[in-house]
Amino acid sequence: MYNSKSKPSVLPTGGGAALIDPSDALILLLDHQSGLFQTVKDISVSDLRRNVEMIARLTTLLNIPVITTASEPAGTNGPLMPEIHELAPHAVYVPRKGEVNAWDNDDFVATVRATGRKTLIMAGVWTSVCVMFPALDARAAGYDVYAVLDASGDPSEMASRISLARFVQGGVKPTSTNALLSELHRTWARPEAAELGKLYGLAAPNYAAVAESYARAQQAAREAI
Amino acid sequence: MYNSKSKPSVLPTGGGAALIDPSDALILLLDHQSGLFQTVKDISVSDLRRNVEMIARLTTLLNIPVITTASEPAGTNGPLMPEIHELAPHAVYVPRKGEVNAWDNDDFVATVRATGRKTLIMAGVWTSVCVMFPALDARAAGYDVYAVLDASGDPSEMASRISLARFVQGGVKPTSTNALLSELHRTWARPEAAELGKLYGLAAPNYAAVAESYARAQQAAREAI
Amino acid sequence: MYNSKSKPSVLPTGGGAALIDPSDALILLLDHQSGLFQTVKDISVSDLRRNVEMIARLTTLLNIPVITTASEPAGTNGPLMPEIHELAPHAVYVPRKGEVNAWDNDDFVATVRATGRKTLIMAGVWTSVCVMFPALDARAAGYDVYAVLDASGDPSEMASRISLARFVQGGVKPTSTNALLSELHRTWARPEAAELGKLYGLAAPNYAAVAESYARAQQAAREAI
Amino acid sequence: MYNSKSKPSVLPTGGGAALIDPSDALILLLDHQSGLFQTVKDISVSDLRRNVEMIARLTTLLNIPVITTASEPAGTNGPLMPEIHELAPHAVYVPRKGEVNAWDNDDFVATVRATGRKTLIMAGVWTSVCVMFPALDARAAGYDVYAVLDASGDPSEMASRISLARFVQGGVKPTSTNALLSELHRTWARPEAAELGKLYGLAAPNYAAVAESYARAQQAAREAI
Amino acid sequence: MYNSKSKPSVLPTGGGAALIDPSDALILLLDHQSGLFQTVKDISVSDLRRNVEMIARLTTLLNIPVITTASEPAGTNGPLMPEIHELAPHAVYVPRKGEVNAWDNDDFVATVRATGRKTLIMAGVWTSVCVMFPALDARAAGYDVYAVLDASGDPSEMASRISLARFVQGGVKPTSTNALLSELHRTWARPEAAELGKLYGLAAPNYAAVAESYARAQQAAREAI
Amino acid sequence: MYNSKSKPSVLPTGGGAALIDPSDALILLLDHQSGLFQTVKDISVSDLRRNVEMIARLTTLLNIPVITTASEPAGTNGPLMPEIHELAPHAVYVPRKGEVNAWDNDDFVATVRATGRKTLIMAGVWTSVCVMFPALDARAAGYDVYAVLDASGDPSEMASRISLARFVQGGVKPTSTNALLSELHRTWARPEAAELGKLYGLAAPNYAAVAESYARAQQAAREAI
Amino acid sequence: MYNSKSKPSVLPTGGGAALIDPSDALILLLDHQSGLFQTVKDISVSDLRRNVEMIARLTTLLNIPVITTASEPAGTNGPLMPEIHELAPHAVYVPRKGEVNAWDNDDFVATVRATGRKTLIMAGVWTSVCVMFPALDARAAGYDVYAVLDASGDPSEMASRISLARFVQGGVKPTSTNALLSELHRTWARPEAAELGKLYGLAAPNYAAVAESYARAQQAAREAI
Amino acid sequence: MYNSKSKPSVLPTGGGAALIDPSDALILLLDHQSGLFQTVKDISVSDLRRNVEMIARLTTLLNIPVITTASEPAGTNGPLMPEIHELAPHAVYVPRKGEVNAWDNDDFVATVRATGRKTLIMAGVWTSVCVMFPALDARAAGYDVYAVLDASGDPSEMASRISLARFVQGGVKPTSTNALLSELHRTWARPEAAELGKLYGLAAPNYAAVAESYARAQQAAREAI
Repeated sequence: MYNSKSKPSVLPTGGGAALIDPSDALILLLDHQSGLFQTVKDISVSDLRRNVEMIARLTTLLNIPVITTASEPAGTNGPLMPEIHELAPHAVYVPRKGEVNAWDNDDFVATVRATGRKTLIMAGVWTSVCVMFPALDARAAGYDVYAVLDASGDPSEMASRISLARFVQGGVKPTSTNALLSELHRTWARPEAAELGKLYGLAAPNYAAVAESYARAQQAAREAI
Repeated sequence: MYNSKSKPSVLPTGGGAALIDPSDALILLLDHQSGLFQTVKDISVSDLRRNVEMIARLTTLLNIPVITTASEPAGTNGPLMPEIHELAPHAVYVPRKGEVNAWDNDDFVATVRATGRKTLIMAGVWTSVCVMFPALDARAAGYDVYAVLDASGDPSEMASRISLARFVQGGVKPTSTNALLSELHRTWARPEAAELGKLYGLAAPNYAAVAESYARAQQAAREAI
Repeated sequence: MYNSKSKPSVLPTGGGAALIDPSDALILLLDHQSGLFQTVKDISVSDLRRNVEMIARLTTLLNIPVITTASEPAGTNGPLMPEIHELAPHAVYVPRKGEVNAWDNDDFVATVRATGRKTLIMAGVWTSVCVMFPALDARAAGYDVYAVLDASGDPSEMASRISLARFVQGGVKPTSTNALLSELHRTWARPEAAELGKLYGLAAPNYAAVAESYARAQQAAREAI
Repeated sequence: MYNSKSKPSVLPTGGGAALIDPSDALILLLDHQSGLFQTVKDISVSDLRRNVEMIARLTTLLNIPVITTASEPAGTNGPLMPEIHELAPHAVYVPRKGEVNAWDNDDFVATVRATGRKTLIMAGVWTSVCVMFPALDARAAGYDVYAVLDASGDPSEMASRISLARFVQGGVKPTSTNALLSELHRTWARPEAAELGKLYGLAAPNYAAVAESYARAQQAAREAI
Repeated sequence: MYNSKSKPSVLPTGGGAALIDPSDALILLLDHQSGLFQTVKDISVSDLRRNVEMIARLTTLLNIPVITTASEPAGTNGPLMPEIHELAPHAVYVPRKGEVNAWDNDDFVATVRATGRKTLIMAGVWTSVCVMFPALDARAAGYDVYAVLDASGDPSEMASRISLARFVQGGVKPTSTNALLSELHRTWARPEAAELGKLYGLAAPNYAAVAESYARAQQAAREAI
Repeated sequence: MYNSKSKPSVLPTGGGAALIDPSDALILLLDHQSGLFQTVKDISVSDLRRNVEMIARLTTLLNIPVITTASEPAGTNGPLMPEIHELAPHAVYVPRKGEVNAWDNDDFVATVRATGRKTLIMAGVWTSVCVMFPALDARAAGYDVYAVLDASGDPSEMASRISLARFVQGGVKPTSTNALLSELHRTWARPEAAELGKLYGLAAPNYAAVAESYARAQQAAREAI
Repeated sequence: MYNSKSKPSVLPTGGGAALIDPSDALILLLDHQSGLFQTVKDISVSDLRRNVEMIARLTTLLNIPVITTASEPAGTNGPLMPEIHELAPHAVYVPRKGEVNAWDNDDFVATVRATGRKTLIMAGVWTSVCVMFPALDARAAGYDVYAVLDASGDPSEMASRISLARFVQGGVKPTSTNALLSELHRTWARPEAAELGKLYGLAAPNYAAVAESYARAQQAAREAI
Repeated sequence: MYNSKSKPSVLPTGGGAALIDPSDALILLLDHQSGLFQTVKDISVSDLRRNVEMIARLTTLLNIPVITTASEPAGTNGPLMPEIHELAPHAVYVPRKGEVNAWDNDDFVATVRATGRKTLIMAGVWTSVCVMFPALDARAAGYDVYAVLDASGDPSEMASRISLARFVQGGVKPTSTNALLSELHRTWARPEAAELGKLYGLAAPNYAAVAESYARAQQAAREAI
């Protein structure tokens, strides 16, 4: 059975050669704030928050470090969505001093560097700003950067398509919440499998109903015997 | 302050003359089953379940009777979504004997009649079947019938538009989850106001972020003094 | 168990009072021709044909009479889709003499009248023409008329919305393939239940996968014992 | 063979009882002006103009009277699209004196009345204004009124849906260009059949390609013999 | 030239028989509040506010009375958009005492009645609640009621379609901002024509560019002489 | 006439220089399972299955090797769609031991390597996971990799657009079912042409109706002689 | 004034350095056939044909060579749309011998080479096949290749997005009909300016109405003097 | 506090390394003309103009140079939208002599060069022409080029997606109005912060309502004390 601590990310098959190494991953959740949420138009607020909630739960389950930050949370941008720190109590919050770009902030970059991790997985609101700017700057600084676009939000569909293109152009790897879960999950042969299974019901809600039907079908089969 | 038990539904202004009388309302939740959910294409499963959850909570808060039923829940249609009875423990479940149309079932119709209520508010999956058939039959039997279309689901966008048209043609009143909440809510000058306020965050998720921003802005103002 | 021949359409509960009486139903499939299919823009040709196939199978299973017709099938409009008569060999084909409106044709109307049935369920291409004209004329002649819009097709989305509105305005009842199946199905307590169950996989294709998962889950449960 | 002059609109079968009587039809084309076209958002200008062109050709082919009018064509609303009078030289143009609603204009209403026809088929830009107002007023004056929505245009998709609903509510019958062609066409057994066939290529452009393929396939078959 | 005060709404042609009589019209703007705006999903906030701005300007130009109200504006629902009272200083604001339905409020209904006008033109957020409830109640009280759907907003596209259907079912006349402008405008032969012309640039923004092109083309023609 | 075995992939014209060499192609069908199908939102399940069916038939017709695999098929992910092995009986199924990424599995990679083929054509559910991970890893291992996106499925439209971008960024070539058919088909001058022609009716369903019209037109031409 | 024959493509400003050199351009129109048109789902057939018509007219106006070809035009794919050779009589038609990829055909490639031009501008149906294959092969052969996506067509929206991505990945430059017109047009200071101006009315139909309004506004200005 | 003149663009953290240096930025607004606006179909004219207005205001606030130009403004293309020069009086207008591509014009390129700035931020109508051509040519000339796609417009959705792809392929960086504002804004700790805050209400209109709610909530909190 898979043991997160000892198993190498890249297997003898070559499996994982082009994938995230979970032991090198650092999650950055940037400016998921209630005021900014109102301007998001490329994903519903309920889907966006549920995706962020999934990521928070996932980091707790797999012991992946998380850094959060906010842009002027006492002002119009509003407070961070509280679910993040509730579900990922190990997350470290770094306040900023007015910088729009988190990578402009000394404390933020220092906190990132202190983890020693080089694979940065970012999500935030707005995608085109709060994720894009630190993503491009981190890439320039030599990090391997992923942007989780459906745990982020942009103020229009057009802005969203532009963000995706600019990430690719800038060497930032685009991904989605469900794919991130799978890329960190990696195998069902691990102790956390049952808990991970539940998370798919958040990232792809039809999956929860699949599981409910499955359990009921098995119960019916057992009762029929 | 509004007192649900004593206040008449129709006010001296004429307010409420064309609206639901909460004291005459009966909620029917029909076949919200995990297998059927997979076929729903006019609303996401997460939005659909959250809307149904809102209705369940609302009925508990306002003491509105609820009847649930399911179509072959041990078979492929799958089990009822468990949130309904968890959040509305007063709901009465009526099993059926294979009938597609709940109004074909003796127990179901008897249970409806036993409430003495004449305003039936229905939601279910599929809208065009599990809601449409009892809605039309109940209308033929003299009931005032509402269909909550976004707490229901149909297997295509076209089927959904057809359902809306057929409801209107058949004298069934179409409504939405958020409108139903407001129509039963009726006034903020009532003891349940704070609890009702939270429910809007389920029916219209941006509203939850509005409330978070509001609270934070007020805190900032108080801290600034 | 339900017995199609003896069971009344309207039950003691009032169930069925506002629904189709299967013993009075006649299916009219109008101009499902390969040339006309190319102009359909409100549904994909594959969905349209599969819905018509489902109706053909359903009529055979439940012994419901069917009449087909075509508009100039040796000309540009093209031949009828062959699946109809293959799957519903009892269907009667009535050739026309150039009339756009099937209700203008003596033989067609005579064939309808000869069945003695008064509930006409129509589908065809185009919805706004080949279904609309006979539907409105049949309604004027006193028939109870249903139009199955997703077993029909129109040359634009706007034309499709207009058709739905004109049907409602003209007293024609709009329905969808899946709803028609359910409305004729009526109960799982009947000998044809298993066969009917399979038809849902045509009318709502996710349902087929639901059934596959169900069977496999039950097999897994039995194997685990 | 069908003879427009002698054949009754309603056949012995009852065919046509609920349809337009071509001999009683009058086409009103209202404010199809280049400036107003720029504001149309529920249909592309190319589709809109082609549909109007089809109607103009159809009226010439079938000798159906046409009245056109324009709202301030020397001003910002711009000139009428020239194709109408080019293709329907029998059309009568009635200038207005500033009235938004053509039915407010003495000359326009007098010209309509002078035709003696009671079935008014209207199209124009905007649907919600230039068609809606005279349609409702003509209906109030006892006329049978049809609105051709895809030979008309509205400034938003929402406005378009509202127009459709308001027409139905007001007793105006909604239709589309292709359906109008078919409703006036009525039978392929008439001298104008070949010319009518070409018009379908305008109302449903895929039909033109169907005809091209048909001709080529027949040629290939003949060459193969 | 048209003189608003003396010209009858219904002309000798019958023009206006089915239209709004401007001298009987009363505009009700309901709950256009910043917090509620965030939940609107069937129209962009910029389009919604610009449409409401147009209506405010129109009422000032044509001296049409306006009543505004708000639901708990010091709470999470937020303040009224300030443009209304800035652009329509004659508008009367009626505070409510917690009622969701404005028609439940004594002062509101009394203010409506005091105008003596019987044609109520309503817009608000949410369409399905803040417009729907007083619209249905006013209709029950005998008023002629119009709902301006694109100067209103609903929390989903589905809710929006449902609102349109429920208005029609309940005898409320649906309309759009641009159509309302035209229906009150009625003729270009009036002193306010130039000012009215500018308002079309708000209701249908392409119209503003049409006017700019027109003016420049005329200037170029004059310069060329 | 083209002879699959002897004809070089790259012709003297340079044709095929940038295309798939069919003799080097290996098809990998990954996790097309009934439970996962329910979560697919970027393509309908019926279109997805029909595309996979086309690929299965194509491999049999052209003798292209196929490897299938599944992720926990006795669990909630559900069984493989049975059509694959029915229509491509030569396909080799490789069970996995819990790995999400097929390239992590020893047997799977060994089976791929044993074919000696270097052009891998992959499809699966989810695109962003079950296709993406082995595609990126295979690319890192030096394979030429194609992803067939419409024979695959992702849990949202946004996830689908992200997958397309990530494939391009990672050097995986995106393609579609119909293009794959054409790229392997290559010429009508081959013995399998008639059978290949039928497959276009699966990949582009309107094509089937084109063929039906063609045959009927030719028959009509012959009968007319 | 611009003189096509003598003016260099790259100006002293550097203008044109990254643009098409009209004197090196060759237009390839591939398989615009009536049968294939029926399967196109990413653009309407009327828009597609009008765009191809514009390109044909443009090549005649600017003396740009054109090569056409067709895939089995006597078979189900159907004949080429006749407008191409009618409007571009200088176009050279090259029949194929069954090859799906035009670059596989000796005569086609020889005809391309004989022009001596190295900038190939391709359009066709299907984009993903009839354009993609020769585009990739021509690119491999050292040509500069442009693909005009809206003068081409693909069988689904997803296939269309995939084609765009694969072109970019393969170094083929994507463009649109209107952009191609402008890129070859280059300046209004040339003898063909008036004729080129009319072509914009085909590539962007609103432009035709802009011109009509402009002419009428100027006429009105002159009449007013 | 941030001081635009003295603060380096790239901070010690590395922040800004991959971002626009405001002191090197030059804004080019190309052909925002009323006639061309009518052909724009990938963004509404109201959104497009509001975005351009925002950029004009931003350049004035931050002292960023602007160059405008127009294509035949006395002709059918129409005049420049007047808001640009009203809100950015420092903008320099460069007339052209018929060139479609601004980079073909001597004066335009000379004016660009005279600024000494190497980061060009372009927007215009059409995106695929008036922005694309100078963007590609400027890139070829060694400039760092950004294209603001939602302050630009293309004649179809497909043309818009093609433009985005061609920009990326050609090394032009795509961005959106809101992202541009943020990228030049850079920090809230600057004197212009309050004015910048207002601009977000133009780039993302929901933000204006967020600010209104915030102010009202704070007022309510203060009043409550």
